Amino acid sequence: MNAIGVDVGGTKIAAGLVTPEGEILDEVRYPSPNSPEKLVETIARAVSEVSDGSEVGGACLAVPGLILAQENKVVFSPNLRCVEGIPLKDELEPNIGMPLTIENDGNAAAWGEFRFGAGSEAEHLVFITLGTGIGGGVITHGILMRGAQGSGGELGHVTIQATGPRCACGNHGCLEALASGTAIGRRGRELATENPDSALGRLAASRKILGEDVTELAREGDEVALSVLDEAGTWLGVGLAGFINVFNPEVVAVGGGVMEAGELILEPARREVKLRARPPSSDLAEVKAATLGAKSGVLGAAALARDASSGEYVLGG
Amino acid sequence: MNAIGVDVGGTKIAAGLVTPEGEILDEVRYPSPNSPEKLVETIARAVSEVSDGSEVGGACLAVPGLILAQENKVVFSPNLRCVEGIPLKDELEPNIGMPLTIENDGNAAAWGEFRFGAGSEAEHLVFITLGTGIGGGVITHGILMRGAQGSGGELGHVTIQATGPRCACGNHGCLEALASGTAIGRRGRELATENPDSALGRLAASRKILGEDVTELAREGDEVALSVLDEAGTWLGVGLAGFINVFNPEVVAVGGGVMEAGELILEPARREVKLRARPPSSDLAEVKAATLGAKSGVLGAAALARDASSGEYVLGG
Repeated sequence: MNAIGVDVGGTKIAAGLVTPEGEILDEVRYPSPNSPEKLVETIARAVSEVSDGSEVGGACLAVPGLILAQENKVVFSPNLRCVEGIPLKDELEPNIGMPLTIENDGNAAAWGEFRFGAGSEAEHLVFITLGTGIGGGVITHGILMRGAQGSGGELGHVTIQATGPRCACGNHGCLEALASGTAIGRRGRELATENPDSALGRLAASRKILGEDVTELAREGDEVALSVLDEAGTWLGVGLAGFINVFNPEVVAVGGGVMEAGELILEPARREVKLRARPPSSDLAEVKAATLGAKSGVLGAAALARDASSGEYVLGG
Repeated sequence: MNAIGVDVGGTKIAAGLVTPEGEILDEVRYPSPNSPEKLVETIARAVSEVSDGSEVGGACLAVPGLILAQENKVVFSPNLRCVEGIPLKDELEPNIGMPLTIENDGNAAAWGEFRFGAGSEAEHLVFITLGTGIGGGVITHGILMRGAQGSGGELGHVTIQATGPRCACGNHGCLEALASGTAIGRRGRELATENPDSALGRLAASRKILGEDVTELAREGDEVALSVLDEAGTWLGVGLAGFINVFNPEVVAVGGGVMEAGELILEPARREVKLRARPPSSDLAEVKAATLGAKSGVLGAAALARDASSGEYVLGG
């Protein structure tokens, strides 16, 4: 039966009606509101619009931030404060007339890649998303690893350099602090100052460098921008090597906006993985680009809604 | 039905006949031989002796090192070289007359603590063993996380300080390189040289300091030895915080010989976890001492033998 996935993001809400084979039959998007009432209303409207007239098995919301699965609520969401604390299931289920579950957005996207994308041949997948921050999710033995409260899979917040730069989470030396888009922007600004004659340095003279500027200039061949991506990719590899030793996955899929840099970030990551991960895990694990792009959230959430109602995947708790 | 667990260690082989409730009815021990033929013979004899006359459902070997579960063999075992490459299942099953499985020793011990020890109330357990090296295992959603090849759960080989000291695995800054008994011994020798008037310094003048010397002198109140354990415990906490963010477990159980130091190492670890792990995972996870001691391997392996034959736990692959 078809199911609905809703990607509740910091800037937009996307809802899709999805077939069991991962085809999106209908999709709507709305800008993210900034009040709890408007948020609930917008999600209900989006679900109602895409489900119009067809039989639907259930819906799942992919939400950013840390969730408490048993209470079906988000406890901390820096990019969507208005979602914090709302009992989403209780508020929405009566309105939409179908079973509703909620899931962390990284976990939902991981499930999407596992069912329909880069991990569709695997039983064990590590999915990591490089954006402003770093998130992700893990499938082990075919099961989404949600943890006791549904807040597992926080792959961006493992320490890889304890004495490293401060992370948005308050910690020092998290993977996110060294390999996210934010980290690439910060490092780009540092190296621009040190290399005023580089393309990066010249751009920095006119405005603040962001992570995407580094990628663009690297693609145009600027050596300094290339070195920033090489460094971030190396840090990514340090983190991935640990995940490979711990999870022994067939596939490590890397997605998110930073993957506009493609091989410029994946190649140094693979090089570092070779140095740091151990056989046989290191021989098996394939580090590659995720394939679903921005659709992974909607697709994964819809698949989770279906799998949750059929009891096929393990619920937290 | 009763089952047999065999802990195949670098110095001794222990086999136990274990009830479903985790009671060891009979146990034998032999020194570890150093040839493949003698090893197979000794394991077969030990299994035969403890199973004498009773009905037994199966046996499981807990072996040190990296295993390839599909081929039922150990590919790398620095502390028991003679076990490498032997097709253990094929060689042993005909001799012992019961189903045999093999498992990494850290994973088996984790399963022991999960079924009968520190994690018996949990569905999600991170077990870490601090000895000469660092090993461990993870139970998530009630499933032993073996990974695609059965070589998952290598918790000692995650990088927590990329620029840190060299690890036995060749990498730099692994958790093992900073918080194992070996690391405590090395750091003890460094600080003994810097502090020749401390109890640690005076001992170092007469012989080489080992990890256990540091623990003993710390318990006697030597400030320098205490600072070595505090530092190792802090590094342990850096690693545990990452595991808590990733796995969202109810319990983190710490075992192994280094736990002779008890709270002297757990207290700084908990302090660092509070700084680095994120709520709600950090609020839930209880960091405590493992409870089964050296019996965790035999008990866990026996439980795995039983669960494998009943299809209760997920086999690799």
